[in-house]
Amino acid sequence: MDTVRRIEAVLAEVLGEVNGPQAPRQLAAALKHAVFPGGARIRPRLCLAVAMACGDDAPALANAGAAAIELLHCASLVHDDLPCFDDADTRRGQPSVHKAFGERLAVLAGDALIVLAFQTVSAQVLHAPQRCAKLLATLSHGVGMPFGIVAGQAWECESTVDLGHYQRAKTGALFSAATSIGAAAAGHACEPWLDLGRWLGEAYQVADDIRDVASDALELGKPTGQDLAHGRPSAVSALGLGGAVARFERLMTHALESIPDCPGSRSLQALIRAESRRLIPTHLARPVHAARRELESRPA
Amino acid sequence: MDTVRRIEAVLAEVLGEVNGPQAPRQLAAALKHAVFPGGARIRPRLCLAVAMACGDDAPALANAGAAAIELLHCASLVHDDLPCFDDADTRRGQPSVHKAFGERLAVLAGDALIVLAFQTVSAQVLHAPQRCAKLLATLSHGVGMPFGIVAGQAWECESTVDLGHYQRAKTGALFSAATSIGAAAAGHACEPWLDLGRWLGEAYQVADDIRDVASDALELGKPTGQDLAHGRPSAVSALGLGGAVARFERLMTHALESIPDCPGSRSLQALIRAESRRLIPTHLARPVHAARRELESRPA
Repeated sequence: MDTVRRIEAVLAEVLGEVNGPQAPRQLAAALKHAVFPGGARIRPRLCLAVAMACGDDAPALANAGAAAIELLHCASLVHDDLPCFDDADTRRGQPSVHKAFGERLAVLAGDALIVLAFQTVSAQVLHAPQRCAKLLATLSHGVGMPFGIVAGQAWECESTVDLGHYQRAKTGALFSAATSIGAAAAGHACEPWLDLGRWLGEAYQVADDIRDVASDALELGKPTGQDLAHGRPSAVSALGLGGAVARFERLMTHALESIPDCPGSRSLQALIRAESRRLIPTHLARPVHAARRELESRPA
Repeated sequence: MDTVRRIEAVLAEVLGEVNGPQAPRQLAAALKHAVFPGGARIRPRLCLAVAMACGDDAPALANAGAAAIELLHCASLVHDDLPCFDDADTRRGQPSVHKAFGERLAVLAGDALIVLAFQTVSAQVLHAPQRCAKLLATLSHGVGMPFGIVAGQAWECESTVDLGHYQRAKTGALFSAATSIGAAAAGHACEPWLDLGRWLGEAYQVADDIRDVASDALELGKPTGQDLAHGRPSAVSALGLGGAVARFERLMTHALESIPDCPGSRSLQALIRAESRRLIPTHLARPVHAARRELESRPA
């Protein structure tokens, strides 16, 4: 089974377990809407790619970790789209959850997805207590206070914000959780994998800022111009478009170079390269492609 | 240390760990506001009372379980008070979180509290994997889909609702989690304790419906008349005030009678009796007091 199918299968399974006939129908539908169809599933794919690079000797645990990462990401999207935040009408090319189901069910759907993420990993505790303890701590760190994505979103409510601090929490935290959990699920130390998550998370956030000004809404599947409209910190407003693209390039190069030496490093590099092609509009990304080619031409 | 101090101490400790100097200040303040000063702390006190009745041989685990229960309860209050739900200006006699900090920080505070609840129990996994697995599963069941408090809240969005089903999920689920977690933290089977949580949870919800029409806002610390104003299912609208009081009495009697035989049963009964005195306005509760006296006069 390829990685994408594996992720979709485990997400369908965990959602199916809680969306049975005894569940309130509207909330069950809202959960499904929040998770399917997915976006690029970049975080869980990164998680599984690291698990595979580390041997993937406990695939059920890696699946649980990857699913949890994606469920938490979906929860953050549902809540970020709410009228009090971005007031976004669309997400992944369909109505946002609050547009389709109303604001109350959107709040509850986010809550239920957070619970489901922890429930999914918790279900593995008896099989692998040591690894699960690491997974659960990493999930909490990546999502909660003071360094996780919830804290990242909260920095938008502060009067003064350090851009790096904000981006590390808002996006980097869940990327670092993805790489750490992939390694921990396969019984490896997390630490060598933290940098990869950090670089990729920051690169992804910078790319998101770039797409917010340089893409159209149809291509993006959600409204553009949101950072400016909401007065949010943005790499583009801080560095200009050219500066933001240069920053993205540096971050991607750091990410590719940070991959620890391991049997699966090649396929992981391939995944990251493929992703980066989607991350910023092609006409802005020439130097990145050049940097990538240079890296590809080096001896393995 | 008495139970209330024990709960306040552990809540202060877990909140202190995530509300350090590196946390976004507004969200840190919102979390503190959501948790302190507390209400009656009925759920964590119930949890600890059951743990003590079962020997309390792992107090750190019982503390973590009790704190998690209360954090999840606080999260549900913060989200339930949001403009899209109850739009409540006050809670526990002070401004609700969204009134004090704005809607965005209220959404994030609820999210962060859910994460913190799971994080608090997860931190004990390595010390007691078997018991923690049970605690984590029970927490998820009590909060998530399809039977937990999030599902309970979602039943308010459905066009047809079974009142018992709704109340079991909205309130009973977290009470059952409290009794189950108390027992599991002390290494006892949960099952004999489930009924106590169920009866108390349903009684508490019925009492809440009664107070919503029969108390004044100052006494209650939050707005009254909310069920009617929001067209919510309510024991009073379904059964009338007299019928709701009669139901409350039956449920409290069932609860007191369901307590398993154990060394701590007496103090547990005392806690429950003390709580029930606060649950509904005194002028409505004569028959309950009479039932209580009758139970107290029985041989132990």
